[in-house]
Amino acid sequence: MYIIMVYDAKPKRGVKLLKFLRQHITWVQNSVFEGEITESSFEKIKTRIKEIINKEEDSVIYYTFDSGNYKARGVLGVEKNDLDTFI
Amino acid sequence: MYIIMVYDAKPKRGVKLLKFLRQHITWVQNSVFEGEITESSFEKIKTRIKEIINKEEDSVIYYTFDSGNYKARGVLGVEKNDLDTFI
Repeated sequence: MYIIMVYDAKPKRGVKLLKFLRQHITWVQNSVFEGEITESSFEKIKTRIKEIINKEEDSVIYYTFDSGNYKARGVLGVEKNDLDTFI
Repeated sequence: MYIIMVYDAKPKRGVKLLKFLRQHITWVQNSVFEGEITESSFEKIKTRIKEIINKEEDSVIYYTFDSGNYKARGVLGVEKNDLDTFI
């Protein structure tokens, strides 16, 4: 499956999320990540995120797709991280 | 078509993007928007974004879908804006 994930967290937890998520999916911009992962990795990632965040204050949104199921992706302005792994 | 859009811009231009994008698609979190728009609105939005941003410093990423084409969407933590218009 393919995932897009965006977090909005207080700085201390934001840093933790950044470090953790970079180990699993590709950082694309600011607090945005995307990448191909397995269903089981996704479950583990969600579990870990719930441990990191304060669920009253932080927010992590994700969108999942069957691989290759989005129509287009584009960037206006700076491409902050070129995605070699992009589908 | 359905669109997810995320910006990363210096504060002054970020505020402009926020104000502009809220008129066209739904704000969901921090600098994240999503919504159903027409192809022609999308073209107009891209044109206006290019006028607002500094293309050396800011970044706007978008993903487009045929409507209803993503598998799942979820939020961990706070749902900052409930989406009545969510497909």
